[in-house]
Amino acid sequence: MADEENAYTFATTATRNITLRNLPDGEFKMWRGGSLPEVTLAYESWGELSPSADNAIIIFTGLSPSAHAASSPEDTSPGWWEYMIGPGKAIDTNRFFVVCANSLGGCYGSTGPGSINPVTGENYGAEFPDVTVEDIASSGYYLMRELGVDKLHAAVGSSMGGMSSIAYAMQYPGEIRYLISISAATQALPLTIALRSLQREIIRSDPDWNQGRYTDDSRPLVGMSLARKLGLVSYRAADEWNSKFDRSRIPLEKLSGQRFEHEFEIEKYLEYNAQKFIHSFDPNSYLYLSRSMDWFDIAEHGDSMDDGMSKLQVARALVIGVTTDILFPARQQREIADLMRATDTEVDYVEIDSVNGHDAFLIDDEHFSPVVKKFLDDSVCK
Amino acid sequence: MADEENAYTFATTATRNITLRNLPDGEFKMWRGGSLPEVTLAYESWGELSPSADNAIIIFTGLSPSAHAASSPEDTSPGWWEYMIGPGKAIDTNRFFVVCANSLGGCYGSTGPGSINPVTGENYGAEFPDVTVEDIASSGYYLMRELGVDKLHAAVGSSMGGMSSIAYAMQYPGEIRYLISISAATQALPLTIALRSLQREIIRSDPDWNQGRYTDDSRPLVGMSLARKLGLVSYRAADEWNSKFDRSRIPLEKLSGQRFEHEFEIEKYLEYNAQKFIHSFDPNSYLYLSRSMDWFDIAEHGDSMDDGMSKLQVARALVIGVTTDILFPARQQREIADLMRATDTEVDYVEIDSVNGHDAFLIDDEHFSPVVKKFLDDSVCK
Repeated sequence: MADEENAYTFATTATRNITLRNLPDGEFKMWRGGSLPEVTLAYESWGELSPSADNAIIIFTGLSPSAHAASSPEDTSPGWWEYMIGPGKAIDTNRFFVVCANSLGGCYGSTGPGSINPVTGENYGAEFPDVTVEDIASSGYYLMRELGVDKLHAAVGSSMGGMSSIAYAMQYPGEIRYLISISAATQALPLTIALRSLQREIIRSDPDWNQGRYTDDSRPLVGMSLARKLGLVSYRAADEWNSKFDRSRIPLEKLSGQRFEHEFEIEKYLEYNAQKFIHSFDPNSYLYLSRSMDWFDIAEHGDSMDDGMSKLQVARALVIGVTTDILFPARQQREIADLMRATDTEVDYVEIDSVNGHDAFLIDDEHFSPVVKKFLDDSVCK
Repeated sequence: MADEENAYTFATTATRNITLRNLPDGEFKMWRGGSLPEVTLAYESWGELSPSADNAIIIFTGLSPSAHAASSPEDTSPGWWEYMIGPGKAIDTNRFFVVCANSLGGCYGSTGPGSINPVTGENYGAEFPDVTVEDIASSGYYLMRELGVDKLHAAVGSSMGGMSSIAYAMQYPGEIRYLISISAATQALPLTIALRSLQREIIRSDPDWNQGRYTDDSRPLVGMSLARKLGLVSYRAADEWNSKFDRSRIPLEKLSGQRFEHEFEIEKYLEYNAQKFIHSFDPNSYLYLSRSMDWFDIAEHGDSMDDGMSKLQVARALVIGVTTDILFPARQQREIADLMRATDTEVDYVEIDSVNGHDAFLIDDEHFSPVVKKFLDDSVCK
């Protein structure tokens, strides 16, 4: 969800906007009720769609990234998954037509709570309907139709994006050939719900949140900063921070002497990263997308988790977990793999021993690239 | 630090106050500078001091408990460590004279930021000097002198209290025969500092904190509630909550329909426990005691951690860790044991496989009592 270097790049020069057409009854119906009269998605793409339109890959993002997953000639700034996507890379844009959209409900160009409600002429704010992982998946489905793709070669997603990929496969059986789910979950568990609920409550407790009706001049920046820090703590792992920060202190001459001020480098690091984030991310988008993950539960797609997963009709799946992930623990990744296998899906499960916790997929090129590359190479050679 | 049942009992009928006398230069000098002209400690005791004054045990508490560690004829309400302390229990009050004080800096009767500064006639608030684990240990040392005890049979502490026990032993070599350290640390590590720093920042960000100058009518209750929830999340372990809460929902008829309201039982549980806490705990005490743990580092008692630990002169130590503790991980408990052994201290190390995380010592009678009982029984029989 968050790499301190480039996760929140919001690049515009390569980003296109597309308004979804051909929606049933002309509107976007939300999974939990309500609808949107119009949905625009901001997306970027890399590579060329083959004449038979059989080489498309959709990338679903975590909570916060934009559509700018990788650089391109139109925008050479590094994307949030730069190491993974490009010519000759694991997701090889010489071979695949790769699409990444800003999530529905997000704030980097796609329709979300910061968008104008065409009915009222004002921002949706907290009047935006509930956003679910299923809705994010559906918006991706209609986006791909707009781009001339009926059946995906693959859907790839990490964290919330992994849930979206699974939701896509369950909602549109047979429409994805290959599925890659990284550090995702079949359903949110109490600790994870608690950590996200607390982040949302911190934002909502900032008086500037004002029930979602803040203005550009008075956004709940304090709440966003605290929530973001809590997010960062949950995305990383203890041992990485031990080796990176240990008990290093901020130099004495940089201290103000104020009671309870930051004294340790780890405190400064969190402050720096929170400040970088809060000026580019819409608080209401944070609330909506955070909540969507709490609700996700494949059991709602059938009578049970097994039954939900049995909707899946993919040729093969790759499931990746990280040993030090406390938010979406490896145990949950093994569960995804086991549930898929129980429905006779062919599954490669890889558990990566990385110190980088939940954020490993954003950082750990060395471990992730070979695994994803091999899976996708095999998917076209077999 | 927190048992949902009884950790914050603030009982008065058995609590006594004692003003520390015989302080060097007539004042209490703080470890990080500054001093207090007067220190009063609120304490309770159980059992009788032997004629030779050789059976005294001091209990150091975690961040939040009061002196009411156990019931007594004077106050029959259960204490925060009720299962551990009493006639015939692991810390056997038929045999030992057991003392527990509210920590210096706390808010349950001992001198702290909520106390009146005799110099100004007003509450100290954020003008209270920095409190360290060393100061908490020292105040315990002077308390025991007041009670007629020169040399302790044992010091026992969990979490912050474990640090205090170690600090006591380092600061007063040879003054403790037996040491029990449970889920403590030789020094705070970055993840733990981050989690505590964030709690403090949440409190300080509540406008009602007002630089520590709040009144009884306008305490930073919102900040305290959010901080307390974050604390609770860090004290428990994922698997316990999975089995206790899973994805249970608050019944529909209890929902208001407000956007982003609590829907899961885990959210309700945190809210309930936070509300119970915030009306009895002083926010400034929370800030001071929380910070004291970040600073603790046995390396400051010598040239290195080894050198600091070499100050210890105890006959034997019991070190207990819990497999699922994310705040003071078992690895840190093994480190304490190893550092003690390196100074030729005899050490029993026990790692308890409990689902209760950092809070296990408050809950897990079955695992903890036999271990503590055996250690203390052996301490008098050998």
